Amino acid sequence: MSLKERALKAHNEIKHHLFQELLPFWSTHGVDKKYGGYLTYLDKNGNPTGETVKTMLCQARMIYTYSSAHRTGLGEGKFLEIAGQGVDFLVRHFLDKKYGGWYWTCEQDGTPRDRAKIMYGHSFAVYCLSEYAMASGDKEALRLAEESYSVIRTRAADIQHGGFGEFFEEDWSPKAPGVYGGDRKSLDVHMHLMEAFTNLYEASGYHGHKTDTQRVINLIFERMVHPEFGTGMAQFAFDWTPLRAILFKNVWGSDRDVDDAEGRPLNNTSFGHNVEFCWLLKHALEILGVDEEPYRERMRKMYDHCVRYGIDWKRGGVYCEGPNDGPARERNKEFWQQAETLVAMLDAYLLFGEEKYWDAYENVHRFVMDFVINHDVGEWYPLFDENNNRVWDYMGHAWKINYHTVRAAIQSEKRLAAILAGMGD
Amino acid sequence: MSLKERALKAHNEIKHHLFQELLPFWSTHGVDKKYGGYLTYLDKNGNPTGETVKTMLCQARMIYTYSSAHRTGLGEGKFLEIAGQGVDFLVRHFLDKKYGGWYWTCEQDGTPRDRAKIMYGHSFAVYCLSEYAMASGDKEALRLAEESYSVIRTRAADIQHGGFGEFFEEDWSPKAPGVYGGDRKSLDVHMHLMEAFTNLYEASGYHGHKTDTQRVINLIFERMVHPEFGTGMAQFAFDWTPLRAILFKNVWGSDRDVDDAEGRPLNNTSFGHNVEFCWLLKHALEILGVDEEPYRERMRKMYDHCVRYGIDWKRGGVYCEGPNDGPARERNKEFWQQAETLVAMLDAYLLFGEEKYWDAYENVHRFVMDFVINHDVGEWYPLFDENNNRVWDYMGHAWKINYHTVRAAIQSEKRLAAILAGMGD
Repeated sequence: MSLKERALKAHNEIKHHLFQELLPFWSTHGVDKKYGGYLTYLDKNGNPTGETVKTMLCQARMIYTYSSAHRTGLGEGKFLEIAGQGVDFLVRHFLDKKYGGWYWTCEQDGTPRDRAKIMYGHSFAVYCLSEYAMASGDKEALRLAEESYSVIRTRAADIQHGGFGEFFEEDWSPKAPGVYGGDRKSLDVHMHLMEAFTNLYEASGYHGHKTDTQRVINLIFERMVHPEFGTGMAQFAFDWTPLRAILFKNVWGSDRDVDDAEGRPLNNTSFGHNVEFCWLLKHALEILGVDEEPYRERMRKMYDHCVRYGIDWKRGGVYCEGPNDGPARERNKEFWQQAETLVAMLDAYLLFGEEKYWDAYENVHRFVMDFVINHDVGEWYPLFDENNNRVWDYMGHAWKINYHTVRAAIQSEKRLAAILAGMGD
Repeated sequence: MSLKERALKAHNEIKHHLFQELLPFWSTHGVDKKYGGYLTYLDKNGNPTGETVKTMLCQARMIYTYSSAHRTGLGEGKFLEIAGQGVDFLVRHFLDKKYGGWYWTCEQDGTPRDRAKIMYGHSFAVYCLSEYAMASGDKEALRLAEESYSVIRTRAADIQHGGFGEFFEEDWSPKAPGVYGGDRKSLDVHMHLMEAFTNLYEASGYHGHKTDTQRVINLIFERMVHPEFGTGMAQFAFDWTPLRAILFKNVWGSDRDVDDAEGRPLNNTSFGHNVEFCWLLKHALEILGVDEEPYRERMRKMYDHCVRYGIDWKRGGVYCEGPNDGPARERNKEFWQQAETLVAMLDAYLLFGEEKYWDAYENVHRFVMDFVINHDVGEWYPLFDENNNRVWDYMGHAWKINYHTVRAAIQSEKRLAAILAGMGD
């Protein structure tokens, strides 16, 4: 097949998946009709498992997803409505009126369970509320996004070293060190803050939000990207000394291997985070109106590392992580790394015009279509081993919902359409 | 005379000055009976000059001074009343309800003149409102102090490099670079933020205010103190590159030489700031409950530099500034440097028990008593040349009021009493 035929085929498959599978699934699943907000524990058939804890992260990400689908012109108002009731639930039950910021988890009916303040979730409060504000024109949502931004800066910014602390108790005192994360900073959270500040700036047009987005970008390149290899480093002490990455108790639960006392090797990088960072960075530069030229070669390093070491060219898909300068070590294939690699490799192809990026896209696209998507239902399975055997099979849980999958489908569809338009008739 | 006799004499002179001169002067001067707040332009006789612009910095510093005098047990309620009407004026006319923070100057009646947001002034909003809250028990004043702290963190903290930007327009966009200060950071402002956060923590007991005070202390030692000489450096780029110190258009007007295009040499330090920082640091450590031991030798370096190069051992008083490793270059004698050196050298004597610090105190004390104080009126002349000729003779203006003088007299009196108590009968 010619490249154009291959692009056309991929575009059709993505459109089919988005419009016939993913969006229909999320039109009928996920909303908590009893208490409002979202119920995110769904088994392999998409049915509620009976677990009902609500995590702030998933509530916020669902709000983002439905709002962004509406902004893309989809759902004929239905997605906006689903987003709006999610905002109501979030504000009613997660907002801490005493200490500021957002609780971390609550019961189905909204009773707070874990009142901790986690920066990961706070970045998504800013992200989803500004997305909802742009989708709806709701000024109160924008005000709440700005208030969340202000709380992040007031309570979590490290005025000594720059950047942000990430794990706090209810009253914003730092959590214990180590696995509770009180003494660590991460690329993951700072990347999501870049993503959130970008969206907030798009919604507000306020110069301070632009400045902060640029400063987080600078910080990531100065402190969190390997000076030699150009790939992302995961975790740091408050003074930015790189640390072996460990798993945190409060964020990722069932979807990570917890037998991890020593942490991963220092020479380790995440393929999914690297390329997700690249496409979010390119988007941020567009929103900021900043020239991408000084960033092109820096992005290329991350893309090339993923193409060379991250893609499973034999069996398809992208591995989790590995050293900055050699083959992947952790070869499981997670749903979110597939999702982010789809968008990212299309961006790389659009940026550099080199076929190896298209090939990487197509490889992961094929893996997603043939293995990851549960076509009986419409959502994605969460995890596979390196031989493409399914490890877990649920459609949703405390930390996995539709943020990565729907966003990847929407963003890939747009990029494929642009690539096809560039090819002419 | 024995040391005890000398201490007794100094103590009596300070008490006489504080109770018979300074406080009586400020009991009858400064309050704007027409519009509220304070009128700070006073000629050499203490009479209003007719200039009526009100600077946020002086209004805030006056509030601090009266509040602290009340907290010290002075004034029988009168000073608290004078402070309270100052708080009313400040909140009514300087608080920016649209963008947050405080305007910089206003007309006598409160009409805003310069709506710029200057961090120097904001540090004193936190300082004076927390002092007033402690003096009065007014919870609304404490809330406003915390709100100012939040605005400082939200709008001025540099999330890339740590520390704070200092010069902003009304809407918090940074001012132009250079003499407008938009691209600079200074020891001066960060020292005053340490002072402000210390007071806020004393008033609130909130762990975040303690953490921030400690982080500003760390930041000053890591970034703003000369790694070899241990003395303070004045100005920096946002990334902490030391810069030649220049004068800023918006802060110091008539009380500085403005013929300063190139700025002062890079090898330059302020005697007054160094020793003021030391005693404010010691006070901060006490309030935080932090062991002063790790800071003793660092303080000693600054004190010894001042004793060796800053004190005019022949004619009395302390010079302005000079190189980190040699005799003073700028040999004018400013009132505020005298004031801060009084308190600081008593602290040094209490810390180290060495007579050279007492000698330095006594030298400056004598100079203040014999030259600086305008005994006809009760306040201090602002500036002398190195031969002790008076250069300016006003008692108050846009930037000089009673903050340095009253605080120095109150704090010196306390320390002299402690020294005398330590000497026994």
